[in-house]
Amino acid sequence: MRREALAAPGEAGAGENASKCRNRPLVASEIVALVVQKYGGTSVGDPERIKAVADHIARTRRAGDDVVVTVSAMGKSTDDLIRLAQEVSHTPNVREMDMLLTAGERISMALVSMAVNDLGVPAVSFTGSQAGIVTDTQHGRARIVEVKGDRIREAVADGKVAIVAGFQGVSTAKEIVTLGRGASDLTALALAHVLGADACEIYTDVEGVYTADPRIVPNARKLARVSLDEMLEMAATGGRVLMLRSVEFARKYGVRIHVRSSFTWAPGTWVEEASEMESMEQAIISGVTHDTSEAKVTIEQVPDQPGVAGKLFRALADAGCNVDMIVQNVSTEGHTDISFTLPKDDLSSAHEVMQRVLGAVGAKQYRSDLDVGRVSLIGAGMKSHPGVAATMFETLAREGINIEMISTSTIRISCVVAEADVERAVQALHDEFKLGQV
Amino acid sequence: MRREALAAPGEAGAGENASKCRNRPLVASEIVALVVQKYGGTSVGDPERIKAVADHIARTRRAGDDVVVTVSAMGKSTDDLIRLAQEVSHTPNVREMDMLLTAGERISMALVSMAVNDLGVPAVSFTGSQAGIVTDTQHGRARIVEVKGDRIREAVADGKVAIVAGFQGVSTAKEIVTLGRGASDLTALALAHVLGADACEIYTDVEGVYTADPRIVPNARKLARVSLDEMLEMAATGGRVLMLRSVEFARKYGVRIHVRSSFTWAPGTWVEEASEMESMEQAIISGVTHDTSEAKVTIEQVPDQPGVAGKLFRALADAGCNVDMIVQNVSTEGHTDISFTLPKDDLSSAHEVMQRVLGAVGAKQYRSDLDVGRVSLIGAGMKSHPGVAATMFETLAREGINIEMISTSTIRISCVVAEADVERAVQALHDEFKLGQV
Repeated sequence: MRREALAAPGEAGAGENASKCRNRPLVASEIVALVVQKYGGTSVGDPERIKAVADHIARTRRAGDDVVVTVSAMGKSTDDLIRLAQEVSHTPNVREMDMLLTAGERISMALVSMAVNDLGVPAVSFTGSQAGIVTDTQHGRARIVEVKGDRIREAVADGKVAIVAGFQGVSTAKEIVTLGRGASDLTALALAHVLGADACEIYTDVEGVYTADPRIVPNARKLARVSLDEMLEMAATGGRVLMLRSVEFARKYGVRIHVRSSFTWAPGTWVEEASEMESMEQAIISGVTHDTSEAKVTIEQVPDQPGVAGKLFRALADAGCNVDMIVQNVSTEGHTDISFTLPKDDLSSAHEVMQRVLGAVGAKQYRSDLDVGRVSLIGAGMKSHPGVAATMFETLAREGINIEMISTSTIRISCVVAEADVERAVQALHDEFKLGQV
Repeated sequence: MRREALAAPGEAGAGENASKCRNRPLVASEIVALVVQKYGGTSVGDPERIKAVADHIARTRRAGDDVVVTVSAMGKSTDDLIRLAQEVSHTPNVREMDMLLTAGERISMALVSMAVNDLGVPAVSFTGSQAGIVTDTQHGRARIVEVKGDRIREAVADGKVAIVAGFQGVSTAKEIVTLGRGASDLTALALAHVLGADACEIYTDVEGVYTADPRIVPNARKLARVSLDEMLEMAATGGRVLMLRSVEFARKYGVRIHVRSSFTWAPGTWVEEASEMESMEQAIISGVTHDTSEAKVTIEQVPDQPGVAGKLFRALADAGCNVDMIVQNVSTEGHTDISFTLPKDDLSSAHEVMQRVLGAVGAKQYRSDLDVGRVSLIGAGMKSHPGVAATMFETLAREGINIEMISTSTIRISCVVAEADVERAVQALHDEFKLGQV
C-alpha cells in the first residue's frame, strides 16, 4: 500500500539490454566476473575514506574482476546542498533542486576516479546522463525507464573501472533528474541488472543485515544470507539497510546483493533468491524489525457497504497520503471500524481528507494516534510453522504489551503497539525466537 | 608572446550563429535589449549574496530586458574542490578534475535560478553542455569552438531568464571540460556574441577599471570608459579586472563590456571599441599597471646570427615556458644580449632548456632574476604624443629607480625594474600623468 510498492515493478523496462556485455564465449581461462560496487555517503565521507574505497576498488580489479562502481554524495553533502537551497528560496524550484543535488555525486565520483587512477588502475567517471540512465520526467523522484549503459560497457571493455553517479539520470525531456533519497542503491542494482553483473555489492556503514537493530538488541546477529522476499518485508517494516524500492527492483530482476561494510570490508549479508541459498534448512524466523515513523488512524462506525473503503482510500491517495497497513474488523450491526497507518508527516493531509469525506462515507468519527510503533517478525519458514503468530502474541502479552493492530503476510506478522513498548517488544521477541544463536 | 595571446583569435568560430535570436523585425514598441550578466565567485559567495544577485536579475528582467546570466562557482569553492582532489590523488587525472570542478558552477547556477524563481521571475539553469558550448578536447584549458545556444534562445523566447554555468563546456569527444581559471568571463562574452546581446555586464568585487591599483595608489580613479585596445594592454600587463583571453575575444568580436560591482551596483567601466566612445578628446594615458609575477632571464654574448633567437624561443615554447617580453640589444662585435621575462612558475623549466641549448646556440652564459617587476603606462592617446616615454623615464630616474628592460607597443610603454621599486614607480607615474584627476 506504500507508494513505492505500487510503482516499483514498472521500473527499468530495459530487460532486452540485460547481459549484453557478458555474452562473449566463455573460455575457462577467461571467465571474468563483473561486479557492481555501490558506496554510500559515509563510505566516501572524507578524503581518507575515499582513498580506502579506491584501494578496495583497485584490489578487486587487480584480482581480475571487471568493476563498475556507483557512488553517493560525500557524507552529509546532500543535506548541506538542501540547506543552501532553503536559504536562497522558500519553495525551491524542483528542476533546479535536481540540478543542484546532482553536483554531490559528481564531486564524489570524480574524486573516487582520481584516487583509483592514482593507484595505477584506469578509471573513468560518468554522470547519470552519460551512463544512459533514462528516466521519466518527475523531478525529485524520477523513475528509471531505461538504462543504456553504452559508455559503461565501452569503458569496461577497455579494461577501465567505470564510476557512475548514483541517484541521478536524464529524463526523456533531456532534463537532469534525481531518483529520490537513497536511490543510489537503485542505480547500482539497475546497472548490475542491465550489465548482467554477477553480484551487486552495497557498501555501507553497517556490516550487513541483522536479526534485529543492534542498537536495541545487543546480541543481534549478522545474517549470512537472507532471501529477497524476506528482505522486502524487512525493508517495508523498518529495516534501514536497503530501501524498499531497491529490494523490489532486485527481487523483480533477480539481482544478487551483497550488503557489507566499507569500514571493516568483512563479508556481509547475501540477499538473493531463496532457490540459490545454500542452507537447505530454512530458519523459521530471520529477524525482528520495528518502525516508529508511522501514526495510526481509526475510523469508527463506518457503514459496512460496498464502495466505502474505496472512496476513503482513493481520497487519501489523491491527497498523497502514503497509507501502509490497513485493518478492518468484522462488522457488527452493519457498521465496522477501519484502522490504518501512515507516515507521521502525512497525518495533517490525512486530517483534511478525513474531515471532508467522513460525512460522505457515512462514518461517525475518527481518531489518530501518534504514539504507536510497529514490531514485525519476518521469516520465510513461518509458512510451514503455524505456531509463530501465537508465540508472538503470547510473548507480547507476557511483557504486558497491548496489541492495537495485527496484520500478516505469508512470511511476516506485524503488531502495532504503543511507541513506548516497541524496544521491549523487539528484545522479547528476539529472545523468544532465539535469534541471537546461530 | 603569451600562450593565450597566440591562441585566442582562433576561439569561437561561431560567427555564423551570431545575432540569430535578435533578427526579428524591430518595431519601435517592442525594441527589447538583451543583456548578458556575469557574476563572479565573490558575487555569489553565500546565500545572502545570491539573493542580492537574484534581486538584481529580477529587476533587470522586470525593466523589460531579456536576460542571460553566467555564474562562477561560489566564493572559494573551486579552490576547495582542488584541495579535495589533491588530498585523494598526487597527480589528479585531468578528465576527472574537470568533472569535479564543473560541480561548482552547477551548484551556484541552480541556487541563483531558485532564488530568481522565488521572486516570481521564471528562470532556468543550463550546464555548459546543455547551453551548447562546444570545445576542443584539452582538459583544464579547453577552447570554445562553437556556441550553439539553442536551449538558451528557447528559454529567452519563452520569457525566461537563462542561467548558464560559466567556465565549462562539452568537448567534441562528448567529455565535460573546463575552459581554464577565470574563463567564466569568456563564457559570458561568447554567449553575448552568439546571442547578439547589446552588452555583457561583468559583475565583480571591484567597481570597475581604475587608473592604477587602488591598494597602491589611494587616489586611483575609476574610468568611465576604456577602449578594448587599452584594456587588452592592461590585462596583459597586470590589470586583474578582466582576463587577457576574455578581452581578446571581446575585441575580436566587438562585444561591449560593462565591468561593475555586485556589492554597490554602481555604474562601472564600459570597455568598448574606441569608435563608439563618446568622448572626442582621447586621454593621453588611461592607466598604470604593474605585475610582479614574472622573472627575468638574460642570455649574454649570443652570436648575432640568423636563426639563433628562433632556436632558443622554440625550445622554450616546446618546454611550455610562457615567454612574455623579449628585448634584444644592438649587437657589438658580432655578439648581443637577449633578455626575456616569463612567469616565475616557469623558471625551473626554463633553466633546463637554457642548460641544454646554451651551447647549441653558441651563447656564453645566462642569468635569471626573480626580484623584478614590470610597470606599464597604457593610453591610446600616446600614439600622437611623442613625449610620453621620455616623461616616464625621467620620472623613474627622479625616483632613483633603475630601468632594467624597456618594451613598447603603440599604446603602451613597459619598464622592468627591481621588484622593491614597483609600488613607488606606480605611484610616481600616476602622479606625474595626473591620472587621479578627471
